[in-house]
Amino acid sequence: MTNPRSLFLRTLKGEASSPPPIWFMRQAGRYLPEYRATRAEAGSFLNLCYDPEKAAEVTFQPIRRYGLDAAILFADILLIPQALGQDVAFEKGEGPKLSPPMDEPTLESLSMARLHEALAPIYETVRLVRAGLPDDVALIGFAGAPWTVATYMLAGGSMKDPAALRQVYYERPAFLRRLIDLLVDATSEYLIRQVEAGAEAIQLFDTWAGGLPEDVLQIVSVEPAARIAERVKGAAPDIPVILFPKGVGPALPKYAGLEVCDAVGIDFATPWEWAREAVSPLATVQGGLDPLLVVSGGEEMLAAARRLKSVFEGAPYVFNLGHGFTPETPPENVTELIAAVRES
Amino acid sequence: MTNPRSLFLRTLKGEASSPPPIWFMRQAGRYLPEYRATRAEAGSFLNLCYDPEKAAEVTFQPIRRYGLDAAILFADILLIPQALGQDVAFEKGEGPKLSPPMDEPTLESLSMARLHEALAPIYETVRLVRAGLPDDVALIGFAGAPWTVATYMLAGGSMKDPAALRQVYYERPAFLRRLIDLLVDATSEYLIRQVEAGAEAIQLFDTWAGGLPEDVLQIVSVEPAARIAERVKGAAPDIPVILFPKGVGPALPKYAGLEVCDAVGIDFATPWEWAREAVSPLATVQGGLDPLLVVSGGEEMLAAARRLKSVFEGAPYVFNLGHGFTPETPPENVTELIAAVRES
Repeated sequence: MTNPRSLFLRTLKGEASSPPPIWFMRQAGRYLPEYRATRAEAGSFLNLCYDPEKAAEVTFQPIRRYGLDAAILFADILLIPQALGQDVAFEKGEGPKLSPPMDEPTLESLSMARLHEALAPIYETVRLVRAGLPDDVALIGFAGAPWTVATYMLAGGSMKDPAALRQVYYERPAFLRRLIDLLVDATSEYLIRQVEAGAEAIQLFDTWAGGLPEDVLQIVSVEPAARIAERVKGAAPDIPVILFPKGVGPALPKYAGLEVCDAVGIDFATPWEWAREAVSPLATVQGGLDPLLVVSGGEEMLAAARRLKSVFEGAPYVFNLGHGFTPETPPENVTELIAAVRES
Repeated sequence: MTNPRSLFLRTLKGEASSPPPIWFMRQAGRYLPEYRATRAEAGSFLNLCYDPEKAAEVTFQPIRRYGLDAAILFADILLIPQALGQDVAFEKGEGPKLSPPMDEPTLESLSMARLHEALAPIYETVRLVRAGLPDDVALIGFAGAPWTVATYMLAGGSMKDPAALRQVYYERPAFLRRLIDLLVDATSEYLIRQVEAGAEAIQLFDTWAGGLPEDVLQIVSVEPAARIAERVKGAAPDIPVILFPKGVGPALPKYAGLEVCDAVGIDFATPWEWAREAVSPLATVQGGLDPLLVVSGGEEMLAAARRLKSVFEGAPYVFNLGHGFTPETPPENVTELIAAVRES
């Protein structure tokens, strides 16, 4: 499965290289005019996700423009609750609405029965992308991690403080465990199909893992990530797994130390030297640059990028952001950033 | 200034004791019926803050009910922007509104000239509380840290993601530094007066320090905290200083390692064993218990409290929460919690 011509995949497997491979979270997105054009043709965000030709097109766009080392499937983490039977809508300028919010009876009504039928267009996107990418550009499949997806399902949308939902664990632990278990099952199946369709690495985004006490984090985030990675590797032993639990700080080594974890993403608030000492001995490190530095650009961005690269010199490291690009990012700043990382 | 009869102050100065001293963030607050009664008499939250008799009364209430080792001045972190000349209002159920939001011309209009006149009622509260407290109960003065206060000043109120204001630093560093410098000055003066009025330790709350890249954190949070602590210790060399930068995770040792830092608070997401290893050698540790565990109570709360106490056994440690009590906290759970910590 791994492609020896791909610098990105070799780095995930533990090879240090200089310059490091580069890709960016949310590299396909609203900051690119070509994305906005395709998005407008699709009519809605969900239409774009479920249209394999158009989703493949926006996946290719940043590869064409920037010559990055990896492409990441264009999709959304909330396709899973939708495929399980919860209604998901994206209202303009308002964020997602999931209805009804998850409770015990609603959870009982969800089902894996139509999962792959609902997600078939996504698998088709993966096939189209892999067929259209240069050989040395790796394709990353992804999914939201169970806790992060569960916060949207429980709250019916975005929350100001998703960590407050740990109260659900304190008050209804069996209910929360059932929801997490269902998401572990669905996410594992989803990622295995992505790999079968051509994804060469997978990343699990736990965007709302921050702010959880360590024992809750273990149960709702670390263990589910381990179970999903084990399931995916059970089906495809060579597939590298990247875990990105945002905001967990000193708990990062719990993820990096998992047998099934090949790489961990670090968010922009993670101190780089600390990560080099505490995380690099356990797994490949990916990311860390503040995406807002790429909005302002200039010497401050370039100096930070060079320092980030130098901190991880000699360790297996994938250059990336500490969170996705924001829509305000000037695309030309990205060009400058890549040149600074790739200059010798 | 330090009182040798106070277990709390001895612990801040590095003495380990078992059981540890106990107080709680937001121990005076809406979860207590006696607080709600005094608050209703005052008419508004700001009236309560500026009424020395009533503010002293609510400061005493949790001491009377629970026999805690320390009282903390009842006040609000937004009294400082108000004393500097920015309008502050608390709308029912909406959070604070500050107007106009801070920009360069508004910043120029702020002034230290009426600071102590505006804050005189707070100093009077400190005097009343110190005069009325038992000798072995310490009185903690406090203020919001410059970055946290600045987020409210810049946004005109609460934000979903205060760390996004780092963009102000990237785009207008001189403006942000001027605002932080003004807050360092005002906060230092405010805390020195609290100490002169009878506060025996001070705590700086940096509630929104989380999510900042390390170099930004250094400039807007670590250095301002150090400067304020130095100024206060310049006026009162023995005064212990507690820093509580919430959400900073692996950056905690940067605060704990400051010469002027006696203790650091840990939030509820900080892994306890990690803090014992990385922070305890540098400073007294305070806090860590998830306040939501005290809402649900019972054996899960008690087991967590016993484990927390045991992790820090042998190190200087102050028992406390990892964030303030929420209004839903049943007061009887607090009684049980204290008994569990104090049992031998």
